[in-house]
Amino acid sequence: MEHLETKNRVGLIVVLTGNGKGKTSSALGMVLRAVGHKLRVCIIQFMKGDLYCGEIDGVKWLAPLVEFHQTGKGFCGIQGNQIPYHEHRVNAQCAIELARDKIRSGLFEIVILDEINNALKLGLVDLPQVLELLDAKPPSLHLVLTGRDAHPEVCARAQTVTEMVEVKHAYRDGIEAQQGIDY
Amino acid sequence: MEHLETKNRVGLIVVLTGNGKGKTSSALGMVLRAVGHKLRVCIIQFMKGDLYCGEIDGVKWLAPLVEFHQTGKGFCGIQGNQIPYHEHRVNAQCAIELARDKIRSGLFEIVILDEINNALKLGLVDLPQVLELLDAKPPSLHLVLTGRDAHPEVCARAQTVTEMVEVKHAYRDGIEAQQGIDY
Repeated sequence: MEHLETKNRVGLIVVLTGNGKGKTSSALGMVLRAVGHKLRVCIIQFMKGDLYCGEIDGVKWLAPLVEFHQTGKGFCGIQGNQIPYHEHRVNAQCAIELARDKIRSGLFEIVILDEINNALKLGLVDLPQVLELLDAKPPSLHLVLTGRDAHPEVCARAQTVTEMVEVKHAYRDGIEAQQGIDY
Repeated sequence: MEHLETKNRVGLIVVLTGNGKGKTSSALGMVLRAVGHKLRVCIIQFMKGDLYCGEIDGVKWLAPLVEFHQTGKGFCGIQGNQIPYHEHRVNAQCAIELARDKIRSGLFEIVILDEINNALKLGLVDLPQVLELLDAKPPSLHLVLTGRDAHPEVCARAQTVTEMVEVKHAYRDGIEAQQGIDY
């Protein structure tokens, strides 16, 4: 088996957006791949934290290479979420602080900001705050930003952008969310 | 934290296709999520096997819940691949046999057929063979099929289909594939 040698390690900005399934999953898949290369990863989930999801225990298998933080209380304004807007905003602001610290720490080769695109769209974080994270990242650090409605200025700074387009989703047939697939 | 209870476990067919980054990554992310729920997963990669990628060692962290098979010798007809077509076809046919066994074994809650869409498009496997796998799967088994150019009849049988659309990709700027992100 041939081993590619990455001669020039370039810290990429990768944006995973769109309305289809696969954004967070794709970021988690990069975690599994990165661990195979013995890279260290920090995952910060914006807004998530109210519902149990498999990655909470999944990433424990990858310790000590992976650090995992949930910083929120659910998706603001949808799915019957009862938390006041200002509380979502405070949580997201804390997540931005955490992201800034982790990005600057030098402890990770990859930092994943899960659902940050969504948080920005909802006004829980501000565009200058996100752009500052992108502009201040160490050159060799990969930064992965997920969530619907990625901001055009964020995409403009990224090297790789995928739009996950929903062709079909099981929930439209009334099939409930499935363990391991959807959460 | 609230725990969703999936009352009706439905084995889904999930198709991840399109030309953008994130198809295999997304399948690998579901593996990480599934392991968190203590589900057992079998990954069969069609065509892949000539180049080292991080998931080879990444999935070792998840043993004994995850079984991983690479069955190929690279992407047929592209990237300067020198292997004769008939050899690619033999390998892909073996992968179909393996998939049939694993799907019927009852040992897994999720089976991932990575790049099978591509293998079908290239004629390394035949449409009736793939449809037979879908039609014969146990009702509770989730089957995830990745790769570009998913066949319309495969998509028709799926409950969830995402098209990963490339908006941008770093390699178009001459940036080489990066460890942990691209492989």
